[in-house]
Amino acid sequence: MRLEDLMFRPDLLSGRSIVVTGGGTGLGKEMAEALLILGARVAIAGRREDILRETADSLMAAHGGEVLPVACDIRDADSIAQMADQVWEAFGHPTGLINNAAGNFISRTEDLSPRGFDAIANIVFRGSFLTTLEFGKRWIAGGHSASVVSIVTTWVWNGSPFVVPSAMSKAGVASMTQSLAVEWGGKGIRFNAIAPGPFPTEGMTKRLRPNEGDDAYADMSGNPMGRVGRMPELANLAAFLLHPGAEYINGQVIAIDGGDYQATGGNFSALRSWSDEQWSQARQSIKATTGSEKGARS
Amino acid sequence: MRLEDLMFRPDLLSGRSIVVTGGGTGLGKEMAEALLILGARVAIAGRREDILRETADSLMAAHGGEVLPVACDIRDADSIAQMADQVWEAFGHPTGLINNAAGNFISRTEDLSPRGFDAIANIVFRGSFLTTLEFGKRWIAGGHSASVVSIVTTWVWNGSPFVVPSAMSKAGVASMTQSLAVEWGGKGIRFNAIAPGPFPTEGMTKRLRPNEGDDAYADMSGNPMGRVGRMPELANLAAFLLHPGAEYINGQVIAIDGGDYQATGGNFSALRSWSDEQWSQARQSIKATTGSEKGARS
Amino acid sequence: MRLEDLMFRPDLLSGRSIVVTGGGTGLGKEMAEALLILGARVAIAGRREDILRETADSLMAAHGGEVLPVACDIRDADSIAQMADQVWEAFGHPTGLINNAAGNFISRTEDLSPRGFDAIANIVFRGSFLTTLEFGKRWIAGGHSASVVSIVTTWVWNGSPFVVPSAMSKAGVASMTQSLAVEWGGKGIRFNAIAPGPFPTEGMTKRLRPNEGDDAYADMSGNPMGRVGRMPELANLAAFLLHPGAEYINGQVIAIDGGDYQATGGNFSALRSWSDEQWSQARQSIKATTGSEKGARS
Amino acid sequence: MRLEDLMFRPDLLSGRSIVVTGGGTGLGKEMAEALLILGARVAIAGRREDILRETADSLMAAHGGEVLPVACDIRDADSIAQMADQVWEAFGHPTGLINNAAGNFISRTEDLSPRGFDAIANIVFRGSFLTTLEFGKRWIAGGHSASVVSIVTTWVWNGSPFVVPSAMSKAGVASMTQSLAVEWGGKGIRFNAIAPGPFPTEGMTKRLRPNEGDDAYADMSGNPMGRVGRMPELANLAAFLLHPGAEYINGQVIAIDGGDYQATGGNFSALRSWSDEQWSQARQSIKATTGSEKGARS
Repeated sequence: MRLEDLMFRPDLLSGRSIVVTGGGTGLGKEMAEALLILGARVAIAGRREDILRETADSLMAAHGGEVLPVACDIRDADSIAQMADQVWEAFGHPTGLINNAAGNFISRTEDLSPRGFDAIANIVFRGSFLTTLEFGKRWIAGGHSASVVSIVTTWVWNGSPFVVPSAMSKAGVASMTQSLAVEWGGKGIRFNAIAPGPFPTEGMTKRLRPNEGDDAYADMSGNPMGRVGRMPELANLAAFLLHPGAEYINGQVIAIDGGDYQATGGNFSALRSWSDEQWSQARQSIKATTGSEKGARS
Repeated sequence: MRLEDLMFRPDLLSGRSIVVTGGGTGLGKEMAEALLILGARVAIAGRREDILRETADSLMAAHGGEVLPVACDIRDADSIAQMADQVWEAFGHPTGLINNAAGNFISRTEDLSPRGFDAIANIVFRGSFLTTLEFGKRWIAGGHSASVVSIVTTWVWNGSPFVVPSAMSKAGVASMTQSLAVEWGGKGIRFNAIAPGPFPTEGMTKRLRPNEGDDAYADMSGNPMGRVGRMPELANLAAFLLHPGAEYINGQVIAIDGGDYQATGGNFSALRSWSDEQWSQARQSIKATTGSEKGARS
Repeated sequence: MRLEDLMFRPDLLSGRSIVVTGGGTGLGKEMAEALLILGARVAIAGRREDILRETADSLMAAHGGEVLPVACDIRDADSIAQMADQVWEAFGHPTGLINNAAGNFISRTEDLSPRGFDAIANIVFRGSFLTTLEFGKRWIAGGHSASVVSIVTTWVWNGSPFVVPSAMSKAGVASMTQSLAVEWGGKGIRFNAIAPGPFPTEGMTKRLRPNEGDDAYADMSGNPMGRVGRMPELANLAAFLLHPGAEYINGQVIAIDGGDYQATGGNFSALRSWSDEQWSQARQSIKATTGSEKGARS
Repeated sequence: MRLEDLMFRPDLLSGRSIVVTGGGTGLGKEMAEALLILGARVAIAGRREDILRETADSLMAAHGGEVLPVACDIRDADSIAQMADQVWEAFGHPTGLINNAAGNFISRTEDLSPRGFDAIANIVFRGSFLTTLEFGKRWIAGGHSASVVSIVTTWVWNGSPFVVPSAMSKAGVASMTQSLAVEWGGKGIRFNAIAPGPFPTEGMTKRLRPNEGDDAYADMSGNPMGRVGRMPELANLAAFLLHPGAEYINGQVIAIDGGDYQATGGNFSALRSWSDEQWSQARQSIKATTGSEKGARS
């Protein structure tokens, strides 16, 4: 990513420091890079220290600035506290948090065990809350403002089969976003969430589209924009929400999916593939049915 | 429809009188029949008096009771007032209203004229409001309670391409439902809406699925229930919402669509067609990616 | 509750058997009573066996029929399996499940510990899922149809401060409802949820309105209907959704709250307390501003 | 407004041209100013030519650039076509449109006439559609991309009493946003909407808070952020959505209201006013009820 891919003034996040969980790879790494480019000090938290360190080094090599890798398992409250200790020591106090760490895999629900449910829920549902709680307690104790952005999915609005523990957990994180927006908004701590559509990364594709291999995103004709998302688009939204210039946006879940959520089987989205001839034929048929009367009752 | 298709005690709506706009054909006729079976006096309003009369006669022949056909064009406030005059004279005052009259046809939006927009909006958006306003004024003046049920679609939640005037209008009717639930709830007039999925009727199919003919609903595998709706299911819901036993339900839009709205392209609904082998292959691929660790981060 | 408080034919649920978690007290007990009255065999599950037994005895004394008390802690998968064993043995297989067991207490979120979060989440979020999973596996293995109704809250749509673990968990249960509606709908297992507004029970008031005592629900003027809910209203909705006559309703979350959710601070709901004079004064002021033009731009 | 109030690079909108309906006053004028500052050519459309000219002159005097005042009554399709002619002639083709023109006034619904309904609906519901249709036809004919932002309200999600024609109309505009996002997204024309909370302007206050005068927004303690919105916050969001850097955001309705929508009477938002003592008292009461057991069932 380069500064010119982003919409903002170069120093937008200068003086700010932001923690990205799951920041070593995938979307977390992309967002971390954009925040760094815009002048923020960034901490990336994750379980695998070697990968975090590698990411931090490569980002600093490319853009300068400061990226702090912090090992942390968000399933463990003590590990979160230790991560927060490191961040607070390094940065004074962070001005932002991106709850990005997640886990998911597809499965028929009846094939799941309680352990399989916990494997996802303990990261996404419980881990996102515990991270937010730890940071919130410190921000409130210190009287500090902050902006929290959580990465969810568009299924928070309609659920999803075959990824039920993730769907339930992400819905919980969206609810946390709405709830704490009200409870902590008056303390200067605000909450929003981003629901990305298809922004393919290698890890995600393998787990969520295992049978498709490299072709997983080859045909995007089902998406109203006809394409997958571009990382700077996601990064623009994240940076926008983290900055005080968007402070009055609080409690929102914003999809960035090309309009995919709206394009469902329940409505007439499938007609997007119709040719001119099909439309012409349809008009003839309708006319034959309703006579001269265009706004026919049904 | 027969009494045993319905869930209620036989005299559930005895002493009640309910007006169904667009009650001469399609879903309106079906709901009118169920209300009649449950003991209500029913008025069916519509533009074509001959069809109304035919419907009224056939319903009374089958079930006895009283069905009042009233000619009315809900695009015209005076016509609505005259319809209300007839209903109030015949019934004292009605205890319920089903805003069912509608119009719709598929079209690319760029092919529409302002006149085409008005043809739909004047029925669905403006007509539903004017009917509700006329009835509401009379109920409030008389100090009467009432239950209003409006028929909308599941696109009130996500919009729909190719039927934009209808989608906009139905969203407006859903908003009216929510708004007046609050404003008039304290006066004993409550509001709910039903969003039916595929309940095919002849008229609707010709206008909304003109290229498909008789096959329009042949393949319902996209619907989670694998079938279209049955008329008694819709009638059960309408009767339920009209009765005081559901009085505390107010301001709701309830879909009856087999779960279709939730089954979108944005989530993993398409995997419903996977075979056991595909699931087995998926498990292998996921396992290979994440090692022994089931709840992999992504 | 008496049969005449309900809307249905007397034998509506004859031949059916339904499990109600948290069925020993509160809303669960009320729903269990209604199902019994309508002819169902009912199992009530809960942690305190003495209370379950007492409830079962009193319900059978009042209405006859069969109420099976089953001790179960839904935080424990083994306990759920044992409960299911008892139910399957007693009933063959149950035809319905009400996920009603819950826990909640008000607290500033920053005062919570991870243990406090788990106390709620393990019941509502994890426990509801595990119960549903255990039942679902058995239904699928047996090729049986079933209807599942989960009790949530209206905060699933907007979150709630001061009860964040509950708000997050209930949002997760709503998402489970939507997700499994799609995934298991084709297997004849359908899912809906009820979001009750104020239906006061002793236990709930003490935990959620601790500072108010008996006055907690004295002033209901904020609710559009000006009153709390009546138990038969809730019971009517639960029975309706459990019966095959509503089968095509699948994946819905239905509020029964008098319209309370729609009456928010963000809109003009507060004007419900205005007097005629205030409305008259408002009209004058508007007129003075906009001259003769009623539909003024803003 | 000054460049430093905004988040973007100074030339963000250079080479772009954007039409703002209702751009002569209020929020429209504020957004027009921000777009101008960021380098766009701006056309402001409205009914009163003198006011448009005055606004255009004052904006150009302050910031340079080009502001084109165009008289237009969006209730009239011909007037819209003439406005579009002027814009296309002046700018080649515009790259953006803000559907901002609106009308509203508070009234008990039963006091409305059909004419009062039309006064609002013809501007907001029909006028927004006709403007979008006219622009869309031209964009599609020319093969041009564009971004459309419509200004709605948070009541599109829950309705509002006492402004029913506006609530219905705005809900319709939100539905148009979702519908055309899908239908025209593939043609490079994308749609989003902004739902502003309290951003007071003189005109709006007089019409929507007529009885309160200057005190209308004195007490903002009901809002989670404890304040009204600041115009640059709104302008930041509008500029963000209009720029291709946010292109994959399509079909969204984004509230900018401090979290007000989430803070409803239905949930526990009112507890925000509790003192430490009240919280302490609550904890005692809960403890007394539930014994040592923190996660009590209810």
